[in-house]
Formats: sequence, structure tokens, C-alpha cells
Amino acid sequence: MRDEHVDFQQIYEEYRPRLEQVEQILKERARSNQAELTSAGEQLLEAGGKRIRPLFALICGTVGENVSDDVAKIAAALEMTHMATLVHDDVIDQAALRRGRPTVRSAFGNLAAMYTGDYLFARAIQLLAEVDNQEVHRAMANGIVKMCQGEIEQIQDFYNWSQGFKTYFRRIQRKTALLIALSCGLGALVGGGRNEEVHALRRFGYYTGMAFQVIDDVLDFTGSAEVVGKPVGGDLRQGNITLPALLALRNPGLAKRLQELVHPAMSAREATEAIDLIVGSGALGEAKRVADWYIAKALLALQAVSRVSVRQQLTTLTLFLADRTF
Amino acid sequence: MRDEHVDFQQIYEEYRPRLEQVEQILKERARSNQAELTSAGEQLLEAGGKRIRPLFALICGTVGENVSDDVAKIAAALEMTHMATLVHDDVIDQAALRRGRPTVRSAFGNLAAMYTGDYLFARAIQLLAEVDNQEVHRAMANGIVKMCQGEIEQIQDFYNWSQGFKTYFRRIQRKTALLIALSCGLGALVGGGRNEEVHALRRFGYYTGMAFQVIDDVLDFTGSAEVVGKPVGGDLRQGNITLPALLALRNPGLAKRLQELVHPAMSAREATEAIDLIVGSGALGEAKRVADWYIAKALLALQAVSRVSVRQQLTTLTLFLADRTF
Repeated sequence: MRDEHVDFQQIYEEYRPRLEQVEQILKERARSNQAELTSAGEQLLEAGGKRIRPLFALICGTVGENVSDDVAKIAAALEMTHMATLVHDDVIDQAALRRGRPTVRSAFGNLAAMYTGDYLFARAIQLLAEVDNQEVHRAMANGIVKMCQGEIEQIQDFYNWSQGFKTYFRRIQRKTALLIALSCGLGALVGGGRNEEVHALRRFGYYTGMAFQVIDDVLDFTGSAEVVGKPVGGDLRQGNITLPALLALRNPGLAKRLQELVHPAMSAREATEAIDLIVGSGALGEAKRVADWYIAKALLALQAVSRVSVRQQLTTLTLFLADRTF
Repeated sequence: MRDEHVDFQQIYEEYRPRLEQVEQILKERARSNQAELTSAGEQLLEAGGKRIRPLFALICGTVGENVSDDVAKIAAALEMTHMATLVHDDVIDQAALRRGRPTVRSAFGNLAAMYTGDYLFARAIQLLAEVDNQEVHRAMANGIVKMCQGEIEQIQDFYNWSQGFKTYFRRIQRKTALLIALSCGLGALVGGGRNEEVHALRRFGYYTGMAFQVIDDVLDFTGSAEVVGKPVGGDLRQGNITLPALLALRNPGLAKRLQELVHPAMSAREATEAIDLIVGSGALGEAKRVADWYIAKALLALQAVSRVSVRQQLTTLTLFLADRTF
């Protein structure tokens, strides 16, 4: 039996030089001649993160015969776009911490967070403009438009128990899956993949992203070490109704009570009761099975990719990341 | 003697079909399948504005032999970028009204305003991505980065009496001049202008933009009909120290009192006294002379442009707009 953790480390080792190249671009680009922007940008960079999007882009960038230098730029632009959305999301969520560190909005205020997000976003667009590929620009622009739509929908879906599964899945598609799909698809495109490979990797990224977000939404209820710095059930506490909550709602014995408990003025006690009801309902296990289904779809999509190393690395990475806390 | 107002109307008449084309693009693009975003976008469109940036782009687009259809797209993208920055600016300024109508933030809240701005910005990038010209993408991306830097600097410059003229001019360059310079420069570029014409028109746009912002900053103190819906001295009341205030500060008899009066917790009475001191100091006339100097530089830059109609139309438009309230 193979040890997936070792394999995962090996992939990071193999891509370390290129990931460091991406990190270097990020450092250069997050800088400005404006001190507060630079501090906010550096704080975001130091907070790190797993750089999943760049890694996916770099792996998919090896799908063809030649590795293009543009892949690192695209990887960095994707990560900066991701950082920009996080900064604006933290304003929406009034988040004090992310990955255990103060958010930009809590360190510098909401206004500075708005402009830090704008700035990072502008820098991402600027970086992307250096890549001479119209299709990259269009795909990225279309993706960003959808992400923005998703983010404003998220505000409206707060505390909305009648939103249904379709609304939830559309929201996480825009919030998470889209950018991972772009990472894989654009990596493959610039990496010279065949048309069907580009589409397959885009699909792979989409399903993987859906799985990752569902898993995140489950972890939010279990308070694992991965989500340290956030209170258990933090999503629900701020009115963000995710898959486990929607699954629990299908239980007629719980539905009425959940809807009574979760409202804009809910107390900490009400929130805790609602979280306990959801956790006790078996909804987390059901949600995990939804994530498993997305993972299976993602791995299936990979079959259209010719290069064995790409299939293997993406499979290992996805299984490791999806499994990290289950 | 020519009647500039008539000339101005004639220019608008001549460009009406193309301006309507731009308006049509704006309407289509500000739409989304998300009701609140669409309402906010439509509200912004209805609020109108003079569409100066599109008009400048369209005029400069006639500098070469052939008029490209891309000019209308670029004109619309520039206007959408402008609208996006206004929406975010209104959050910063906590503005309730713009052009006499409720701002997006006052109608829908700060969070929705943040995302409406993000969305409009994303839509502008998406529109621009349809124009197959790498130079356009790069110039626009570089411009947007600087605009974002300018906007966050603006927050820091609030109530800062030691900022000096250099800081003020750099701020209005980023806030206003840059986008008008881009409108003229990109219009000329896509319109097939010679290299020196593109540069000249970019410079023309830059100086014109500087003049317009200085004029706006003067009008803010005189409360003319043009700025209806804003209180007289609104900039100063919110701590935005503009050219007239900086000019008044050079008067040693006023400096101490002004710095005492203008602070984050200033009362309406203190603000009114400060505004009266500035208006009484002769600073408005001095600021107007600065605007005149920029206009002269703008018209001088035009001399490098071959096509007579472009020189005439831009001159008429600039003089009319600059003179509108002096």
C-alpha cells in the first residue's frame, strides 16, 4: 500500500523550484510604493496557504511537450485573484482571523481591506496582461465576473433557509470551483495540452474545487486543526447556510427548530444549539459522501489526459487534500 | 466670435450615434442574472454623467484613417471602470448622494457597494478582453493599478495638513487624470494614430484630467449647480484636503487656525469656519489659475495631432467643460 502523504511531499519537492518562482512573483507584485498596501500584501503572503491553485496550474502546465514560462505568471495571477477575493470576503464576513492570523480588515480596517483587495486584483490583471494569449485573458475575465456575482449572492443567501441545494451548489461553484477549474484549464492551455485535455483538466479542477468547498463546509462544523482560528460552526454563526445545514433541514423533526434558531439576531446559545442539532443529525457524513462523489467525478475526468505523471500527481494531490481531516 | 456652447452641442450631435452605441454596451454589460447587482448597475447608468471619457475616446479614435469598432468597446470599458471606482469611492467617502441621486452604498449598503464595484470592474476587464490588442490590455492594467494605489493613498491623506502640493497632485493624477489620459491614448491607439499622436493625445488627456479635477475641487467650495446634492465644502468636511485648502495654508495668518479647525472630530461649525477662511483667502482664484495652466498644456500637446477635426473638437470640448462654471 502506498503512503499518500509521502507521495504528496514528493510532488511538493518536485515542484518546489517552480513554486518558489511563483512565490517570488507574488512578493514582487504585492509590493507597492504605498506602505500600508505593502504591509497588507506582505501579511497576506506570510499567512501563506497551501498555494493549491498555483500547484494545480504548474502540474497541468506539464501536460504538453514544453513547459511555458507563462505558467508561473498565470499561477501567480490566479493566487493573487484568490487573495483579493479572500480580503473582500473577510469584509463581508467581518472576519477577525484567517489561518490563525489577523485579517487585513481587522488589522487595517474595512476601507483599507476594500482597496487592498482592489489593488491585488488590479495587480493580478496586470500580471496576466503580460501573457500574450487572448484566450487566457477571456477565460480569466469571464471567471472573475462569475466570482463577483457569486460573492454578492452570498450576502443575499445569509440566513435564507429556503435557498435549496441548487443555490448552495451554484454559490460554491462561483466561490471556489471556478478558480480551481481556471487554474487547471489555463495551466493546461498554456502548457500546450490538446483541446480535450484542456477541457478535461478544467472539469477536473471544477469537481475538485466543489469537493474542497464541501469539505471545508463540513470542517467548519467539526472545528479540526485545519480551521484553527475560527469558532466551530463559524459559518452558521454568521448566517452562512452550507450543505450540512441544508441536509439537516430535510429532517422534518429538525427543520422547524433550525429555522427558529438561526436568524440575524441569534444568540451564541441559539447558534450552539443549531450546530449541535446539525452535527447530531448525521448531515456531516452525508455531506462527506457528496464530496466523495465530486472527487470520483474529478478523477474520472482525468482519464482523458495522456501524460501519466499529470494524472498521477493530480490524483495524489486531490486525494491527499480531500482526505486531510476526514 | 464663436459660440462655444453651440460648438459643444454640435460635437455631441455628431457623436450621438456612437455614444448611443457605447450606452447600449454599458446597459448590456451592467446587467447580471443577479437582481440587486442589476438594480445597482441600472441606477448608476440612469444617474448618467457626461460620459466624458467615452466621448474623448471616440473623438481620439478618429485620429487615423479608419474608425475601429473596438473604440466603442474601449470607451464603454473605460466608463465602467470609472463607475466602479465611483462606487468604491462613495464607500470611502460615506457619500449619500452623487449627482443628486442616492449612491449605491446608501441605497444597498456598503457591502453591496463593494461587490457592485468589483462586478463592474470585472465586467470592464471582460469587455476589454474582447479587444485583441495586447498593448490596450497592458496600458489599461497598468493604469488600474495606479488608480488603486491612488485610492488607498486618499484615505491616508485625509486630515493630513502636511501632505504638500506634490502629494495632492499625485493623488488627483491617479484619481482622475490617468483614466482620461487612457481614454484619449487608447482611443488614438486603436484608431490607428501615429505613435507621436498617441503620446500627444495621452498627454492631452492627462493635462485635461488634471485641470478637470482641480476645477472640481474649486467647485466643491463654491457649491455651484454642477455639484448639486453635495454640501458646500463637502471635501473638507470629510477631511479631504484639496488644492484650495493647501493654497490657503501658505498664508501664515491662516495656517494655524485651519489646522486647529480641521480634524477627524470637527463640528459642522468648525468646518464652516474653515471653508469660509479658505474661500476668503483668494485660494479659489489661485487654484483656477492652476487649472488654466493645465488647460494650456493640454492644448499645446494637441499641436502634434495632424487631423484638424480632432484638434478642434478636443479644444472645444475641453474649453467648454473647463469653463462650465468659472
